[in-house]
Amino acid sequence: MFKYKEVFTRINKSLAEHNNPGKVASYIPELGNVDPDKFGVHLTKINGEDFSCGDSNEKFSIQSIAKVLSLTMAYKLENEKLWKRVGVEPSGTPFNSLVLLEHNKGIPRNPLINAGALVICDVLISRLENPKEELLEFVREISGFNHIDFNPIVVASEKSMGFRNAAVINLMKSFGNIENKIDDVLDFYFNLCSIEMTCKELSHTFLYLANDGVSPNTKKRIVSVSKSKRINAIMQLCGFYDEAGEFSFKVGLPGKSGVGGGIVAIHPNHYSIVVWSPKLNPKGNSWKGMKFLERFTTETELSIF
Amino acid sequence: MFKYKEVFTRINKSLAEHNNPGKVASYIPELGNVDPDKFGVHLTKINGEDFSCGDSNEKFSIQSIAKVLSLTMAYKLENEKLWKRVGVEPSGTPFNSLVLLEHNKGIPRNPLINAGALVICDVLISRLENPKEELLEFVREISGFNHIDFNPIVVASEKSMGFRNAAVINLMKSFGNIENKIDDVLDFYFNLCSIEMTCKELSHTFLYLANDGVSPNTKKRIVSVSKSKRINAIMQLCGFYDEAGEFSFKVGLPGKSGVGGGIVAIHPNHYSIVVWSPKLNPKGNSWKGMKFLERFTTETELSIF
Amino acid sequence: MFKYKEVFTRINKSLAEHNNPGKVASYIPELGNVDPDKFGVHLTKINGEDFSCGDSNEKFSIQSIAKVLSLTMAYKLENEKLWKRVGVEPSGTPFNSLVLLEHNKGIPRNPLINAGALVICDVLISRLENPKEELLEFVREISGFNHIDFNPIVVASEKSMGFRNAAVINLMKSFGNIENKIDDVLDFYFNLCSIEMTCKELSHTFLYLANDGVSPNTKKRIVSVSKSKRINAIMQLCGFYDEAGEFSFKVGLPGKSGVGGGIVAIHPNHYSIVVWSPKLNPKGNSWKGMKFLERFTTETELSIF
Amino acid sequence: MFKYKEVFTRINKSLAEHNNPGKVASYIPELGNVDPDKFGVHLTKINGEDFSCGDSNEKFSIQSIAKVLSLTMAYKLENEKLWKRVGVEPSGTPFNSLVLLEHNKGIPRNPLINAGALVICDVLISRLENPKEELLEFVREISGFNHIDFNPIVVASEKSMGFRNAAVINLMKSFGNIENKIDDVLDFYFNLCSIEMTCKELSHTFLYLANDGVSPNTKKRIVSVSKSKRINAIMQLCGFYDEAGEFSFKVGLPGKSGVGGGIVAIHPNHYSIVVWSPKLNPKGNSWKGMKFLERFTTETELSIF
Repeated sequence: MFKYKEVFTRINKSLAEHNNPGKVASYIPELGNVDPDKFGVHLTKINGEDFSCGDSNEKFSIQSIAKVLSLTMAYKLENEKLWKRVGVEPSGTPFNSLVLLEHNKGIPRNPLINAGALVICDVLISRLENPKEELLEFVREISGFNHIDFNPIVVASEKSMGFRNAAVINLMKSFGNIENKIDDVLDFYFNLCSIEMTCKELSHTFLYLANDGVSPNTKKRIVSVSKSKRINAIMQLCGFYDEAGEFSFKVGLPGKSGVGGGIVAIHPNHYSIVVWSPKLNPKGNSWKGMKFLERFTTETELSIF
Repeated sequence: MFKYKEVFTRINKSLAEHNNPGKVASYIPELGNVDPDKFGVHLTKINGEDFSCGDSNEKFSIQSIAKVLSLTMAYKLENEKLWKRVGVEPSGTPFNSLVLLEHNKGIPRNPLINAGALVICDVLISRLENPKEELLEFVREISGFNHIDFNPIVVASEKSMGFRNAAVINLMKSFGNIENKIDDVLDFYFNLCSIEMTCKELSHTFLYLANDGVSPNTKKRIVSVSKSKRINAIMQLCGFYDEAGEFSFKVGLPGKSGVGGGIVAIHPNHYSIVVWSPKLNPKGNSWKGMKFLERFTTETELSIF
Repeated sequence: MFKYKEVFTRINKSLAEHNNPGKVASYIPELGNVDPDKFGVHLTKINGEDFSCGDSNEKFSIQSIAKVLSLTMAYKLENEKLWKRVGVEPSGTPFNSLVLLEHNKGIPRNPLINAGALVICDVLISRLENPKEELLEFVREISGFNHIDFNPIVVASEKSMGFRNAAVINLMKSFGNIENKIDDVLDFYFNLCSIEMTCKELSHTFLYLANDGVSPNTKKRIVSVSKSKRINAIMQLCGFYDEAGEFSFKVGLPGKSGVGGGIVAIHPNHYSIVVWSPKLNPKGNSWKGMKFLERFTTETELSIF
Repeated sequence: MFKYKEVFTRINKSLAEHNNPGKVASYIPELGNVDPDKFGVHLTKINGEDFSCGDSNEKFSIQSIAKVLSLTMAYKLENEKLWKRVGVEPSGTPFNSLVLLEHNKGIPRNPLINAGALVICDVLISRLENPKEELLEFVREISGFNHIDFNPIVVASEKSMGFRNAAVINLMKSFGNIENKIDDVLDFYFNLCSIEMTCKELSHTFLYLANDGVSPNTKKRIVSVSKSKRINAIMQLCGFYDEAGEFSFKVGLPGKSGVGGGIVAIHPNHYSIVVWSPKLNPKGNSWKGMKFLERFTTETELSIF
């Protein structure tokens, strides 16, 4: 039996000796206000055991990590026909979002880059009565925490600076791959990205992907076994933009990062783990989070490979 | 306990009812001469048990599958400094090899695309006394089959048609990322790709990647645990060119394909499996091989995710 | 002395025998309503002589041809510092607008592609009190025709379908190369493109570029000699999107086309000429207009080369 | 009547006051050995008058300027069917040669980039008995100078460093757009680029393009009026790689540069002019040569626009 808590403390201590060269995301003021030295980690085993360390009970902006949750909802509703509107291939290079969109006539490479997540939002708006409410309900239910919410200040900030996302969605609309009004899709998308959770809440939320699609929390099936595996496969190949290979290579688990400094990773049939440290490396992933998980899977000699 | 043999037969039968829309690789005459309807499968468990079906004892040209073997040799010799000369990220789109090479100043995206495999060959030529002999020796030893060999007719064919590879290697040489003579590297590369094996031989050869780096055959450690996991991670993200996502999504195992129609896949801590069917889909991967493995991991509900 | 009228008639007759494979622009309904068989040509010498043929007195939507007029206004106001925000190089390929914009961090390749024309509109909005009124005033004055106007139906049509332009301007705004509100710039841009003129009116309007910057009409200097030459140089290299080379090669004059089927060409120190025929070739330039001008400069043996 | 000599001296003097930030081409040792402060200019009117200044009688490596001469020979032989194998459009960005080649399936954008010039060499090898001899003969005849020759040391240098060109030609061969042996085409190409001339010799050589295709020297027609104009058009759009727009904009004449520091420009029906100064700007064109010609056409108020 692994003494996770001790491992966490040891790795944290050893990493603390390094100078963290990362930088807190600053493209919107709200994200820049966070204390850059925060660090939290939380691991939840599928049997319900919890292990944590540091600031694991402080809320942070989960940002792009939320794209896995919207993908889960849309995949449930649309099944395999979802893939007519978005691919499952890694995108190659960071600046390629617009390049490849043009090349692929408005079909995004995968649902975890911005373009793909916007298409997923468009799908949900078409299918749900009250998209924002139903999204929150879904997240609250699978996490087991009823107070999880959007951060309206982050939403407003994103909207005022979201020219790049507006470029992406207008390009897709010009190719006919957006059904709803652009402002409605952007509003839903920015709310999705503004969700705030603690490491613990996020770890509980994602546990269904470590448990073949069943939430250990509620014992309810969220998605089928096959869909759960496929969502993990997409995270493995596309969860870290242009660093998907690096994360796969060094950490060896499917995962997803967000510019708020959070990373969630899944060890299927074992656990979900969340690390949070706001300073990002040049590729936009948490510098310390990447290092922590690399050491963690190396020390525990556990990875899917 | 799984009755693999029965599962193989059932899937094979059900796939036989479909019209196979694939086409045998024809860019060199030698590859075009194969019987398009051949089909073989062989699975080897890490405990040594073998399961097979169809033409699993006929030799075929393993082509790009061999790139995993040269990578293994080079990684052993160079350790982590290998990654200064080649990346670990998926390449995005098929035609991008030259595009991204130019963008990245001669550093290939990963060691499994042609450009990266050529750099690996260059590394081996610099480090080995008799590269071709030592490569064969290595393959013969880990497979346990002493007659494995190059096919000189395939080598000659490739050389006469290898303008695209010559373009790739000259571009890298112009950026200073090739140390040896271009003709020497191409000769080694074409020999590497010309290796012929049966499904069974190939399955035995790759078993070390299912066994944390130790060949169950010889009980000898081929690579460290960490390197074995990392090679699997690279296969997972980069093993199927522009269909890496598709394979990961549908099959859920690390693997590598070749234009000879072979596919090898690894279930870490369980088995290696090889499928061979010469007709390729438009992305250059075996049409039936992909379908077979998709059904196989679906039926057995075994994948790394 | 050339008998232009006779040449026009002869070329027109000979072209009439060919089947015109072009297609009327249809991306907005208003443009699709035009009679596809309309054909007009008008040439004005710098001494004021006029020569015309066909439907040269019917109004049509000048579309992108207007970008030369907005460029002239902005160049007068900003002088050489204009080129900090937009380049003077041809763009290479049609789909590159967004690709190269990303590569060049929001600086468009030249002022005659959509991206560049949007930047020019942004400049004019920043500098003019009443941009739309002052633009009309400018065009009316240099043309000598007081009734020239926007077509509000075309403006409304463009707005409802302008997702591609919205993508382009949002991308530039994300790089900081748009100062004003996106909707204001798009409104001005769509009005600019909606201007309607006859061949005669358009030919008179552009005569200042054949006369070293002085409008023969009013004897007033519009731009300096140097600026007049430079605007011609930009038209020569960038006036026909991905067919600039073809037009230069076959016609040998600086010119600009619009998707309304109009083409204006300038023979410096001699004349301006306008051809109008709504059916476009696959690159978006008037099929018959290109052919007509090719034959015209071949027969008259007049070109700048 | 213009006092060209005085103008040359005045501009030269004024430019001498500026610090020249350019750098001599160094990719092959032979080119790096030249005295960086050399400066020569020579203008020849179509009536035969010569005007010169500085080191106008020293030989230098004309490099890419020679591509206009090989184009002229191939265009004469193949007429308009030449354009099936090479385009007439500007290439957009410098690094695009390989990118656009891949996109356009081996058809280069124009005959003045390396890829296009290699195709032209391939054409000449297919059509001529003794390509190198006949090329020299052609150049000697139109220039009127019998001692013009290749520089074998430059050829050898280029061959030892020509990996980029080898990449380009292998890529085109893979698409079927090279008929002859790669080494033969490269040998011819490197010889072509190694031709040495003085400013005066080069100016005389190019005079046929200022004289509607007739060499004033021999009174012989080199190419038809139409072909002469079209070659000028191609120079105008494609003669300066990614600075074609800049040169057109500031100088306003068709021209071609070489990495030896030479620039030739044509004022149709007036003169040809050659400037030589070895230090290059970042785009690979002579820094002082560009400035000199800009001032020259500004002072003389002569340009094609």
